[in-house]
Amino acid sequence: MFPDFDYPARLDRLRSLMSDRGIDVALLSVGADLPYFTGYEAMPLERLTMLAVPRDAAALLVVPLLEAPRVVDRRGAFSVRAWGETEDPIGIVAEACGTAGAIAVANPTWAVFLLGLQAALPGASFSSATPLTRELRMRKEAEEIHWLRHAGAATDRVVARLGEVRFAGRPEREVAGDIAAMTVAEGHDLSTFTILASGPNSASPHHETGDRVLVEGDAIVLDFGGRAHGYHSDTTRTLHVGPPGERFADAFAVLEEAQAAGRAAVQPGIPAQEIDRATRAVIDAAGYGEYFIHRTGHGIGLEGHEHPYIVEGNDLPVETGMTFSIEPGIYIPGEFGMRIEDIVAVGADGVDELNRSNRKLRLVD
Amino acid sequence: MFPDFDYPARLDRLRSLMSDRGIDVALLSVGADLPYFTGYEAMPLERLTMLAVPRDAAALLVVPLLEAPRVVDRRGAFSVRAWGETEDPIGIVAEACGTAGAIAVANPTWAVFLLGLQAALPGASFSSATPLTRELRMRKEAEEIHWLRHAGAATDRVVARLGEVRFAGRPEREVAGDIAAMTVAEGHDLSTFTILASGPNSASPHHETGDRVLVEGDAIVLDFGGRAHGYHSDTTRTLHVGPPGERFADAFAVLEEAQAAGRAAVQPGIPAQEIDRATRAVIDAAGYGEYFIHRTGHGIGLEGHEHPYIVEGNDLPVETGMTFSIEPGIYIPGEFGMRIEDIVAVGADGVDELNRSNRKLRLVD
Repeated sequence: MFPDFDYPARLDRLRSLMSDRGIDVALLSVGADLPYFTGYEAMPLERLTMLAVPRDAAALLVVPLLEAPRVVDRRGAFSVRAWGETEDPIGIVAEACGTAGAIAVANPTWAVFLLGLQAALPGASFSSATPLTRELRMRKEAEEIHWLRHAGAATDRVVARLGEVRFAGRPEREVAGDIAAMTVAEGHDLSTFTILASGPNSASPHHETGDRVLVEGDAIVLDFGGRAHGYHSDTTRTLHVGPPGERFADAFAVLEEAQAAGRAAVQPGIPAQEIDRATRAVIDAAGYGEYFIHRTGHGIGLEGHEHPYIVEGNDLPVETGMTFSIEPGIYIPGEFGMRIEDIVAVGADGVDELNRSNRKLRLVD
Repeated sequence: MFPDFDYPARLDRLRSLMSDRGIDVALLSVGADLPYFTGYEAMPLERLTMLAVPRDAAALLVVPLLEAPRVVDRRGAFSVRAWGETEDPIGIVAEACGTAGAIAVANPTWAVFLLGLQAALPGASFSSATPLTRELRMRKEAEEIHWLRHAGAATDRVVARLGEVRFAGRPEREVAGDIAAMTVAEGHDLSTFTILASGPNSASPHHETGDRVLVEGDAIVLDFGGRAHGYHSDTTRTLHVGPPGERFADAFAVLEEAQAAGRAAVQPGIPAQEIDRATRAVIDAAGYGEYFIHRTGHGIGLEGHEHPYIVEGNDLPVETGMTFSIEPGIYIPGEFGMRIEDIVAVGADGVDELNRSNRKLRLVD
């Protein structure tokens, strides 16, 4: 269940942006735009759920009949049109769009529904709704930061409890299961992902946790998170089974410095790409630049990844209330990988750390 | 990890269908089409992963650089183009499409990527890839039915263990957590969903499991499943805390008869909608027709819901090897709901039941 935000006020702000940018109707479906504006989340299934938000008329939620009992409109922000199994939901949405010329569609909407709407509304032009919705969603309200801090603190408690977990001699999947259970136990509604990458697997940033058994000498990248009250957590710590070799220790010292430089760079007004450059400069200077193969971070909120992205080419100045990850990594194929990730908010005076657990290399058994 | 199917042969069959239907390129992204043809599953995130399958040229997997180490092409079915964080993946896919006139896109592809491709390839026409891919995916190979049977048997073992669970006095969410843990323990790689709808909530077919505490006299609809080796399970049983009243017992007897009628109707060649009619006829005749507010079933395989849909209007004759749910329900708003769901395969001589746990109303404490 999402917190009870002022959804009508958010829809008013959306309509004001639509007016500024010449968008007649916004269509929100699966993903986080719909719950951001209504508190209702669509099931990611083949039956269409879609909120039509005309610029100058009431919003209409088109929802499968069997899911209609789930809809709670706590603020009267929209009306509901439940469609039965033999009805055509695309036709219902198209009718709600009327003679709209410019229609914006939420990014994760299924392509099959966009194709259907394009066929039903041949005179309309379609664009992404994200340029509108991100303007609101990436500037967090104080209560949203409260919930992100709440989720971040829960992951910090999991990190503090890692001493309870046995690593060596167990398959990645089994250890990850323990971490996922702790993620729920410490205060999430669900565990959303647990990447546990060991030994040479740690050089794969999005490793698919599998059957490899952990052994002495392994590096371990542990990247995990969950969702609580609709808001996501996401943190990474690097562990080592027994003491690391010199080459690993050298790289890890560089990584710690790079991640700290990223946090230190956070202040209102700095372009997002400057935070990326701050972490990358440290890693480049130490000669590991070719092994840092991803951006420094991503926004976080109702989605695990959202705007703003902390990446070269994004000159958006970050503002107080924006929340994102800072997660440089070094990945040497065939040898080892490492990453340190925290979620931060931009505070009035600089970084506001939503993760505060120990970032040092943790030696485990 | 997906089983090691003959992916190049599947791609050959896809190309043959593309040729028949005048499709030049198929584009597969998130969802089950991509793993069906490659054994590789895209992460459902904002970075584009897309397999371009030209009718007459080699397939190309466009994948984020940091996910490239996850790609294992066990059969040489495609080549890989890893894109870095500052590259434009849409441009790379568009180049792979060349001068294609007719492009088919997998249904769950994010709308933002379809919009990008439409802008990059203004001369191409886009359509859904599902009319192609479902022709293959809904006709299961023997090994696929093996894995569906394996997953179904795991849910049957969970049902057999329900006597270990305490229901009364606990919130829905907590009981559902126990069921989800048992779903994993009995042989799934993950629990994909657990709907536990109690008391008046049971009248909401897709109820969002919440904080309601179960009490004596509650009906409980328990609909759950998981994923093992890529294949899904999905079963529903109806429970009651203490003995039900007469009205509930009467409706449940009707539901049992309806669900059995649906299973009995399964045979090669029968149109899908006839199976829907078979369950609905029993419920209609008993006067509960207005309370059966959804279709009788959905296909299942690499996706939890896929073709064929068992619904009025679908005159597709089902064939040996097709797999789907049979799940009639009766939902009386404000009072109670009930549903019985099994997965079945179409066998040469009729129904092949992939769920065989006790379907009777189960009284629990």
